[in-house]
Amino acid sequence: MNALWLENNKISSRDVPQPHKQNEALVKIRKAGICSTDLELVKGYYPYTGILGHEFVGEVISSPLPQGEGLGVKVGERVVGEINVVCNKCEQCLNGRPTHCENRTVLGIINRDGTFAEFTSLPIANLHRVPVSVPDEMAVFAEPLAAALEIQQQIQINPTDRVLLIGAGRLGQLIAQTLALTGCDLRVVARHKHQQDLLKARGIGIISEEEIKPWRWDVVVEATGSPSGFSLARQAIRPRGTLVLKSTYKGEMNVNFSSVVVDEINIIGSRCGPFEPALRLMESKQVDPTVLITNEFKLKDALKAFEHAAEPGVLKVLIEV
Amino acid sequence: MNALWLENNKISSRDVPQPHKQNEALVKIRKAGICSTDLELVKGYYPYTGILGHEFVGEVISSPLPQGEGLGVKVGERVVGEINVVCNKCEQCLNGRPTHCENRTVLGIINRDGTFAEFTSLPIANLHRVPVSVPDEMAVFAEPLAAALEIQQQIQINPTDRVLLIGAGRLGQLIAQTLALTGCDLRVVARHKHQQDLLKARGIGIISEEEIKPWRWDVVVEATGSPSGFSLARQAIRPRGTLVLKSTYKGEMNVNFSSVVVDEINIIGSRCGPFEPALRLMESKQVDPTVLITNEFKLKDALKAFEHAAEPGVLKVLIEV
Repeated sequence: MNALWLENNKISSRDVPQPHKQNEALVKIRKAGICSTDLELVKGYYPYTGILGHEFVGEVISSPLPQGEGLGVKVGERVVGEINVVCNKCEQCLNGRPTHCENRTVLGIINRDGTFAEFTSLPIANLHRVPVSVPDEMAVFAEPLAAALEIQQQIQINPTDRVLLIGAGRLGQLIAQTLALTGCDLRVVARHKHQQDLLKARGIGIISEEEIKPWRWDVVVEATGSPSGFSLARQAIRPRGTLVLKSTYKGEMNVNFSSVVVDEINIIGSRCGPFEPALRLMESKQVDPTVLITNEFKLKDALKAFEHAAEPGVLKVLIEV
Repeated sequence: MNALWLENNKISSRDVPQPHKQNEALVKIRKAGICSTDLELVKGYYPYTGILGHEFVGEVISSPLPQGEGLGVKVGERVVGEINVVCNKCEQCLNGRPTHCENRTVLGIINRDGTFAEFTSLPIANLHRVPVSVPDEMAVFAEPLAAALEIQQQIQINPTDRVLLIGAGRLGQLIAQTLALTGCDLRVVARHKHQQDLLKARGIGIISEEEIKPWRWDVVVEATGSPSGFSLARQAIRPRGTLVLKSTYKGEMNVNFSSVVVDEINIIGSRCGPFEPALRLMESKQVDPTVLITNEFKLKDALKAFEHAAEPGVLKVLIEV
């Protein structure tokens, strides 16, 4: 089958064997999305060799379970899939933290071929049925939307909170839409005009860096992954406020932890989130990720899709399989 | 009156005017304790000129309120005192965070003469009556014991939690005693034998750095203020665990925040805490800070007391006034 392969920091479009793992479902990919993590993998921020891609919507082609058995999805159903494939045996799995499984493989990221391909393979337990009313171009956002919702899975956002979101890119836009649902007083730092326009269209307030009063925000979500974004977040947060780190950072950062102690700041890292609420919010149309779609390419043009996705300000680029 | 004065990173024992601030109570100091912050102020980590000292027990000599009026303490009563003197008008004060007052002065630390002196001056609202059964040498620990309790004011410690405390010095010993009351599975990294002996005497488990399994601790409290302590804490904490920073750090630290994001770690700074629970725990004898007392000096020998307190492994040095 055709797939987008990463090896030695180089991506290529090539022919690879179709997966056929026992005990896993075979999924025919319908659409897949390019995420910032994919671009970072190509840059070599993390070591990975294999098929790229972890955001997808597909159709179950074959299942290790007999039709209708258990709670799993069935052959023929449209599905999205959780990206962490876990052991269910380690300390993290046994304590309700399966996304932190110590033996995990991660779809298109750690030791597991991803979704920029005609087919992928995942355990039935990772798959979630897509509601009929949610079209493919919306369902493909289930994974990043779940990641956005992880913030509210970790911390309570009060309706009275002043919340600052720094960054309005692929993930930032989804975070903005989900945070806005809490009723909080949300302001977003968005660099590009079309990012600002998307937010304005949903009635979400934008703010320039110069307008941000220091020491005033109850919650700050840092979604740029840049040291300057972190620095801005640190200045903005109020004493005893919560600073959510939603992006990874290249290398190490210099941080004055004495001021974190004196101001009793809470810094919390945030990664993968829950799929079912993401599907619910799309089904009810309370969140609409499709406004992020900048362009769509065929799988055979996946290299072009990557070039396009890497341009500044470009939001979601989809790959149709 | 005689006092211990800090100026240009030099301490001297000198004669200074007795304080007489309107709207504040005059307190005759009975005992005062030397804290690591005092030693850091002398080293010049923070700029300060004035009388050092912020841990004390004293007696109210004069009060701005008529006897018996309001909820305040009365003349003649033994008191301890909160160190942050606040404006009650700023955003932090008005939102229930008075220890983070934007206009605060801090006893012996920021723009306010401290307690290594015959007298000090504090607003009535800062003072707490000392229960009769709590002797001076115990009451003088109210401030650092309150700081230890701030951890449980900020985060929930479950009885089933595995908790690692790194550092068993002045503050670490008090944290160990208060954390042990939760029933949690507590282990303490203590460098010096007499620190270990104090913990063992209370049935608190100690652990060597080599024995610490990485990625296994629900809560880690870092109380050394050293980069190596922070590094050890970061390795020990489990995914989604809470790392409490209880000491300030000199300068900046290099931290890999990507791993904080991937492991969804919660880092929380912790400073001043609640006095009343500290007094309750000493009154009920559930906590006994007096075991920390290494030595006691007269106020006129305060310089010697500071020299002694700076020696490695020395715990609490008191100054009797």
